[in-house]
Amino acid sequence: MVQVKVFGNKDSLFCTRIEWALKLKGVEYEYLQEDLKNKSPELLKYNPVHKKVPVLLHEGKAVAESLVILEYIDEAWKQNPLLPQDPHERATARFWAKFGDDKVVTASVEACYSQGEVKEKAIESTKELLAILEKEITGKKFFAGDGIGYLDLAIGWVPLGLSVIEEVGEMKVFEADKFPCLHEWSKNFMDIPLVKECLPTRESIVEYFRG
Amino acid sequence: MVQVKVFGNKDSLFCTRIEWALKLKGVEYEYLQEDLKNKSPELLKYNPVHKKVPVLLHEGKAVAESLVILEYIDEAWKQNPLLPQDPHERATARFWAKFGDDKVVTASVEACYSQGEVKEKAIESTKELLAILEKEITGKKFFAGDGIGYLDLAIGWVPLGLSVIEEVGEMKVFEADKFPCLHEWSKNFMDIPLVKECLPTRESIVEYFRG
Repeated sequence: MVQVKVFGNKDSLFCTRIEWALKLKGVEYEYLQEDLKNKSPELLKYNPVHKKVPVLLHEGKAVAESLVILEYIDEAWKQNPLLPQDPHERATARFWAKFGDDKVVTASVEACYSQGEVKEKAIESTKELLAILEKEITGKKFFAGDGIGYLDLAIGWVPLGLSVIEEVGEMKVFEADKFPCLHEWSKNFMDIPLVKECLPTRESIVEYFRG
Repeated sequence: MVQVKVFGNKDSLFCTRIEWALKLKGVEYEYLQEDLKNKSPELLKYNPVHKKVPVLLHEGKAVAESLVILEYIDEAWKQNPLLPQDPHERATARFWAKFGDDKVVTASVEACYSQGEVKEKAIESTKELLAILEKEITGKKFFAGDGIGYLDLAIGWVPLGLSVIEEVGEMKVFEADKFPCLHEWSKNFMDIPLVKECLPTRESIVEYFRG
């Protein structure tokens, strides 16, 4: 019997994070695809507060919020650690993951869906935030070092997500010449078979963002 | 020589969290009071991304973002653990801490400073969120169990903070008869000498919120 279930939606890159982590750990799971316009009673039961995907169910206990789930996975299955051991390095990874979610996601999604002056400001702000990330990845293959870790999974929405946001929002925020190191990281990250195999198609996410 | 410095502002309850945690751990620290209208070069150097308090400096290395700092403190000093040991309980504590910061802080601060229909909506939303927290604390002395832990520190801004927000925003959101268990928790929490001794005066925070 499968002990681990993921309630997710294949077009949500926050859900992809969870699949990446489970695959890195070698944990088998059952994926339950949620229709976000008609959520299952199980999803509403297991995440009554936010009623959102992803939710991880392990031995009957639910965990919600994708970054919280990543840490849970790292603590419940010790093999192939996602976070480094050193407390300061762990704090740094958490700091940047939060930065990605609170700042970069927010600004880029606003840039995608807004118009006029608000859009212009959000585009500028997205670029400024990406410039900060660019500095952080400079000189490293992955955020975690030579291999991928927690922060790579947390930032892992960037390559496909930003490209879709650019298409749907009819704008440019992530130019290769302005962010060469982030683009290099994107390539390295997306080249990993395990990373690739969990990703939805580009067309499918474009549809999702238009919806 | 003091190995630990906190760059903070005594009227910010996000900074109080850090003092609570360090005192629970029995870690000595030097507190550097920041003038938020004229931030020190050290603060800007140690938190160049957000330029915000609190920042913890330990052996020359900086950590920013108050919840990230709490976890850092828990990992750098093992005595008197803030987070429980069980992975699912740890995830639950992190989930609610994030809920407090992302939802309750945001809604209550919006209610405080907005007007008209936006204010009414934010007041309603704050009450709905507090009702969710009320359910979570029902039947427990502290969020962490019999003694305080990470989540109590994360929610620790509520008693004083909400009361100040109510005064400054000229509204009621945290009525004792509607949230009896949260009020009971507030009393239990505020009765702890270590908790009390780090708190600024009510007048001082009122001033801060008006500023």
